[in-house]
Amino acid sequence: MQDHDHDALKATANALADAARAETLAYFRGASLGIENKAGDGFDPVTVADRAAEKAMRAVLADRRPNDAILGEEFGNTAGDSGLTWVLDPIDGTRAYLSGTPTWGVLIALSDDTGPQFGIIDQPYTAERFIGGLGEARLIGPHGEQVLRTLQPRPLSDSILFTTFPEVGSPDEEAAFNSLSQQVRLTRYGMDCYAYALLALGQIDLVVEAGLQAYDIQAPIAVIEAAGGVVTDWKGGPAHQGGRVVAAANAEIHAAALEVLSKAPE
Amino acid sequence: MQDHDHDALKATANALADAARAETLAYFRGASLGIENKAGDGFDPVTVADRAAEKAMRAVLADRRPNDAILGEEFGNTAGDSGLTWVLDPIDGTRAYLSGTPTWGVLIALSDDTGPQFGIIDQPYTAERFIGGLGEARLIGPHGEQVLRTLQPRPLSDSILFTTFPEVGSPDEEAAFNSLSQQVRLTRYGMDCYAYALLALGQIDLVVEAGLQAYDIQAPIAVIEAAGGVVTDWKGGPAHQGGRVVAAANAEIHAAALEVLSKAPE
Repeated sequence: MQDHDHDALKATANALADAARAETLAYFRGASLGIENKAGDGFDPVTVADRAAEKAMRAVLADRRPNDAILGEEFGNTAGDSGLTWVLDPIDGTRAYLSGTPTWGVLIALSDDTGPQFGIIDQPYTAERFIGGLGEARLIGPHGEQVLRTLQPRPLSDSILFTTFPEVGSPDEEAAFNSLSQQVRLTRYGMDCYAYALLALGQIDLVVEAGLQAYDIQAPIAVIEAAGGVVTDWKGGPAHQGGRVVAAANAEIHAAALEVLSKAPE
Repeated sequence: MQDHDHDALKATANALADAARAETLAYFRGASLGIENKAGDGFDPVTVADRAAEKAMRAVLADRRPNDAILGEEFGNTAGDSGLTWVLDPIDGTRAYLSGTPTWGVLIALSDDTGPQFGIIDQPYTAERFIGGLGEARLIGPHGEQVLRTLQPRPLSDSILFTTFPEVGSPDEEAAFNSLSQQVRLTRYGMDCYAYALLALGQIDLVVEAGLQAYDIQAPIAVIEAAGGVVTDWKGGPAHQGGRVVAAANAEIHAAALEVLSKAPE
């Protein structure tokens, strides 16, 4: 990334987040459309918002960064020749979005061939933007700005673990997760990408998931690593292609979680 | 309630929510205290915030409504002789508060001997205030105001169900919940009182919980009923004393849920 203008890249990332924020908020809770919530009307606000937000982000990139590649959740791959790829998930947590909870997010990562270097987790409704990478680690939120810093080490028995679905993944994955869950102080569910943001913010110790896509995890990796955390797969290898992911506040709690999770059959 | 000045009572309820908002935000995420998140420092921000918020609310009542009774989660019962009781839960969702998720809330209900007549579910971090009763049903939020109105009837197979913990309550209660969960489109976890707010907002169809206290449910009952919903216990009786609760967007989905839940052994 040293050949590139970091400030310009960060400005583009924020412009992407601004564009997606406008599109996703327009359909969230049917607020500005006056959508009637009723059965059988054939209107799926999640799909409409998801596609509108990715289109808006792609328009920003076509204008500002036409030579970069794009990997998007909705519209797939667009080739580039700059060595940089924008990895976009316009709505991570479509079920949260559909339910009205303010815990879905827009995920934007900027990656080179070694993985994500910069990322944004944006929550449009709460107006929280978690930013990490290229020397930056901060939350810009409704109550001001703060530095992102992960928790210091504490024992598993004092730790807080998040995952999105109680069933986690396959039966083997669920069993491994449950072994870990039994050793922590508190397990919580249902937060999607917001859990990774809380980890970067120093609120929780671990997020464990399975069956992820690259666009689900690249932005969280950049934000969490910038805040001092560690993100790998369940064997300790790179996680930026998705699959089974363990995100940890520090190396110690990461090692303790891996000790349990690495026993899960492939 | 017809002998009382409704506007004055509503103003008091909002003053209570304002007081609790300030106290709970002061400790949330350690933001304004610069709390170091580390093991073994003996500081429990949830307990401190919980007690500070209830104290602040009791000071407002001592000043404005000295003859009303109070039932508070932290400091118990205070007798009164006006026939009115303020039912206060300064932080509903202490585990959410501890984890940094913006889905806990301050619960304030005003009840007479027939049950809650007015309620507020306040989320201090997102600045959302869900208000219901005495002719009012609205959300005042960061993106403006809107009327609260629950969803119209749709089949269980299209509906969205929330509960806080996957284990719900006793094994019998968990089994009954799981029977219902298998019939809905989507089950989500971990929202505490925010789930009731989403129901009032017309985002979801059902919230089912067990083992509740009176102060957990009285404010949600007032808000949901004002928005057009129905809240009872699992047999269809009154729910304002807590225990097993089913909150529903309308009479039809309530009946469908009760059909399943009422089979749970006592």
